[in-house]
Amino acid sequence: MQANEVQGIAASPGIAIAKAYVMQEKTFEVTRKQDISAEQEMMRLREAIQQSRAELEQIFHNALEEFGEDQAGIFEGHLFVLQDPEWLRSIEEKIAEESVNAEFALDQVTKELIQLFRSMKNAYMRERSIDIQDVSRRVMGHLLGASGQVDSPLEEPVIVIAHDLTPSDTAGLDVKYVVGIAADIGGRTSHSAIMARSMGIPAVVGLQNITGRINGQTMVIIDGMDGKVIVNPSPEQLAYYEEKRDIYRDKQEGLTKLINEPTIMADGRRVELAANIGTPDDLEGAIRNGAEGIGLFRSEFLYMNRESMPDEEEQFQAYRKVAEGMDGKPVIIRTLDIGGDKELPYLQLPKEQNPFLGYRAIRLCLDRQEMFKTQLRAILRASRYGLVKIMYPMIAALEEFRQANQILAEAKEELSRENIAFHPDIEVGIMIEIPAAALAADALAKEADFFSIGTNDLIQYTMACDRMNERISYLYQPFHPAVLRLIRMVIDAAHRKGKWVGMCGEMAADKMAVPILMGLGLDEISMGASSILPARQLIRQLNYGQMKELADKALELESSEQIRQLIQEKVAVIRRTDG
Amino acid sequence: MQANEVQGIAASPGIAIAKAYVMQEKTFEVTRKQDISAEQEMMRLREAIQQSRAELEQIFHNALEEFGEDQAGIFEGHLFVLQDPEWLRSIEEKIAEESVNAEFALDQVTKELIQLFRSMKNAYMRERSIDIQDVSRRVMGHLLGASGQVDSPLEEPVIVIAHDLTPSDTAGLDVKYVVGIAADIGGRTSHSAIMARSMGIPAVVGLQNITGRINGQTMVIIDGMDGKVIVNPSPEQLAYYEEKRDIYRDKQEGLTKLINEPTIMADGRRVELAANIGTPDDLEGAIRNGAEGIGLFRSEFLYMNRESMPDEEEQFQAYRKVAEGMDGKPVIIRTLDIGGDKELPYLQLPKEQNPFLGYRAIRLCLDRQEMFKTQLRAILRASRYGLVKIMYPMIAALEEFRQANQILAEAKEELSRENIAFHPDIEVGIMIEIPAAALAADALAKEADFFSIGTNDLIQYTMACDRMNERISYLYQPFHPAVLRLIRMVIDAAHRKGKWVGMCGEMAADKMAVPILMGLGLDEISMGASSILPARQLIRQLNYGQMKELADKALELESSEQIRQLIQEKVAVIRRTDG
Repeated sequence: MQANEVQGIAASPGIAIAKAYVMQEKTFEVTRKQDISAEQEMMRLREAIQQSRAELEQIFHNALEEFGEDQAGIFEGHLFVLQDPEWLRSIEEKIAEESVNAEFALDQVTKELIQLFRSMKNAYMRERSIDIQDVSRRVMGHLLGASGQVDSPLEEPVIVIAHDLTPSDTAGLDVKYVVGIAADIGGRTSHSAIMARSMGIPAVVGLQNITGRINGQTMVIIDGMDGKVIVNPSPEQLAYYEEKRDIYRDKQEGLTKLINEPTIMADGRRVELAANIGTPDDLEGAIRNGAEGIGLFRSEFLYMNRESMPDEEEQFQAYRKVAEGMDGKPVIIRTLDIGGDKELPYLQLPKEQNPFLGYRAIRLCLDRQEMFKTQLRAILRASRYGLVKIMYPMIAALEEFRQANQILAEAKEELSRENIAFHPDIEVGIMIEIPAAALAADALAKEADFFSIGTNDLIQYTMACDRMNERISYLYQPFHPAVLRLIRMVIDAAHRKGKWVGMCGEMAADKMAVPILMGLGLDEISMGASSILPARQLIRQLNYGQMKELADKALELESSEQIRQLIQEKVAVIRRTDG
Repeated sequence: MQANEVQGIAASPGIAIAKAYVMQEKTFEVTRKQDISAEQEMMRLREAIQQSRAELEQIFHNALEEFGEDQAGIFEGHLFVLQDPEWLRSIEEKIAEESVNAEFALDQVTKELIQLFRSMKNAYMRERSIDIQDVSRRVMGHLLGASGQVDSPLEEPVIVIAHDLTPSDTAGLDVKYVVGIAADIGGRTSHSAIMARSMGIPAVVGLQNITGRINGQTMVIIDGMDGKVIVNPSPEQLAYYEEKRDIYRDKQEGLTKLINEPTIMADGRRVELAANIGTPDDLEGAIRNGAEGIGLFRSEFLYMNRESMPDEEEQFQAYRKVAEGMDGKPVIIRTLDIGGDKELPYLQLPKEQNPFLGYRAIRLCLDRQEMFKTQLRAILRASRYGLVKIMYPMIAALEEFRQANQILAEAKEELSRENIAFHPDIEVGIMIEIPAAALAADALAKEADFFSIGTNDLIQYTMACDRMNERISYLYQPFHPAVLRLIRMVIDAAHRKGKWVGMCGEMAADKMAVPILMGLGLDEISMGASSILPARQLIRQLNYGQMKELADKALELESSEQIRQLIQEKVAVIRRTDG
């Protein structure tokens, strides 16, 4: 390690070589002005909130598929803060009662609120103070106009150096000019790191005090594989990293050659590699990354961030767009998976003690049948425009599946009566994400056309562990023998009845998991668009026979740790031999 | 149905014939007095709260084992309300600022609070208004002294007639004189019905307006089997029900003959029938009902309703008392199963989004090792005084079991160094209540001495359904094929390694479930004391070979409904043939 090298945590792979751009923490100069028209200030405030809202909705939609539901959820939270009537009322009151400018009122109210939240005993509420700060900064930015933005727009490729990047900061970066990120704080699983990976920007985080060592315009190298930052590189260092960068790029370009290749294992078994999407806008990314279908179209986006239920026509248009866009390739639409933690104000869902074990997804749809039927009608109508399939989330018992199908039959009957065309034999599948469904998959397989295993929830319930709860994160174990056994049960039960099985949880995109999943006989695997090509490359290197042996061996082991080790050893050998 | 018969819902079996005692709804006459000493009123208030607290703690302890954790939880909630510093402060402020008497201040503050809670959107918070009312009535009763109690003490056997019985009312009844209960409202699963059953008092609820039809001193018959109340019975009715009562009593007495009989199936297989207890005080009931051991000693009571952790000595004394009391019969002490919904203020647990999937039980103990080790030391010390066994709750992974045993080994080592005696080969078992543990029971069975299946949680996680959540109560299915398959997996895995398997959830006391559980090969079964004798009677009628066949057949079925039907048919035939 040379004197000009700083070791951090590798957060996103790749090599970047460029000038540093040190991002200042946004500090707004807020002055108290009293010579104001309260009415005008309130209007300015509402306008700034409106702009912030539009901005956040845009970011939310972009984040939803690119980074997944968890990441996007942050911005959803921001939208809630922004729309809190109490907050707005407090600021407006301050403007009116003290005759002060909107900036000053916003600043004061926010400070008090943050103080209040920070003093709460409840850790969850304490954390909300960060959201409040982030939202208020956004509104403040709009109030102060461009002049309030400390960061000048980027005009050449730079490596952004920051103390920390809030989710908003990261999402707001102009990817065109940002070629790398280095930050003082954060870890591999920090929001910013995850986002950098999704954007394909090399990043190193946890560098302690990199902002103190670099001035603007300094030449910097970021090594996102080894987690290093080189400040003012020597000619030798420059040459070394330019070569390393080129090697990495060549490898990446190798991936793009796979866009139109089939996903075939080394010994000929073919699997389908599909994309998870959240909105019709995500189609483009899925196609660009060579998706062979849409394995999971989350229909929630249609219902979120609005005042009332989307009607049949609006839903139909969205489903049709995706169906047509995929041009005959399969599109699996998951019916509404809302409730619990994902709230829709207009549904007036009751607050629950354990939302993950509560009234949500198909449970809610079977209770609110009109809403459910509207969605099914929309999907049925879209089925004429492509290869559309229906998937029900959170099925726990056979009765629920039958009841849902009963409503589907009614929807079909209605459409027939109204002379509206639809595909009569549309396939209907079940998302297997509850242990009961996995354990009783044999009965479900008789009546369902396919399964897709939702590992996020399946692991959560099998381990009785909320994956959002950091104190017990050690229990969220995709490689626990119990989880792998359930996956095997599901696949075997389906195959015995001649049905196919996919997977659409995060596990499907995990390089460590793919070999064993292939060995267990998964037929389809669906993931975020950016994971598709690396997965295709990996799968093409794997031998089905060998993976079957690997899976058999893994299922005899006793712990996650042992299974992980086995995979690591085996896969290293296989890839070395075959690649 | 004769004119003097009223049909209601059978809530607790048995026949009662006695005079009616119509319970008035407690209405307190609260007058505003202003010629008071604020200081004295505050003292009176604090005294009344202190008395209420002592009373509630007593009721809580009694309820804990008699009615189980869920029922007892109501009173725990009341204790929380009672100890809310905000509430006390508001009343005291009113006394001081308005110079009014404590009764008036209590009444006013409570009314406002109830109004506030009732107006909340959140259903859970709305329900809290009932608790507040109940608690405030209790305090008011103490403030007003005996004169405020509308109900005069009972002096002869009566049938209590009430509009509704709050949990406090029911628990406060003097069982010595109450021979039956009839209520206008409530259902079979209302708190009062469950309590009446536990107290062995015949009860009929849901009678609409029985309070309007009966005056005090009227002769009344309660038929708790058929859900009927007969007002002013004719001599013929009296004779009929006296005979029915005698037949029921004979049957009950038949049960008492089984107290010292072994629990042996009709074809000779012996199982152990044990009791669940919550405090050493519950020992007496367990022994009186012929428990062959303590299958689950919940150690939580030692930690609840207090300001700080119980020390080793206090715990040791409690465990020793139970160990000695059972006189060599097995006593399984479950280590602390707290966290999530069961909070202990002095542990300062974080609020969680999904407490049932959170930081609790063994997860918390492995994190707070000193606390855990103190408990293990206390259990080890008690192990000299009887046949004590240790059981860890909420084990999901083998690593957790090993880690807990590591701490146990340390505790043993410490005691040895300190020359304190303990049983070195104390048996250590696992409570199987997480699907992962059931699915990976083979690995756990190698290292554990025994299993006990906790069905309440196991069903909850397997079905991904919070059993406290009424909206999805249809999913809490003990007879779901998945649940039965998991139970079979656990039993088979243990037996292959020569280990025994018990069960201590509510399913163990379910008459419908017992036949199939016997068929699956359960070795031990533990339940509330009052269920033991009926279970023994049932098990003695069952034939192991036939139950094995029944279980095999049931496990081939596809739904809870089918399985329930099969059991119903089969068991009816078997009992008719054998009994």
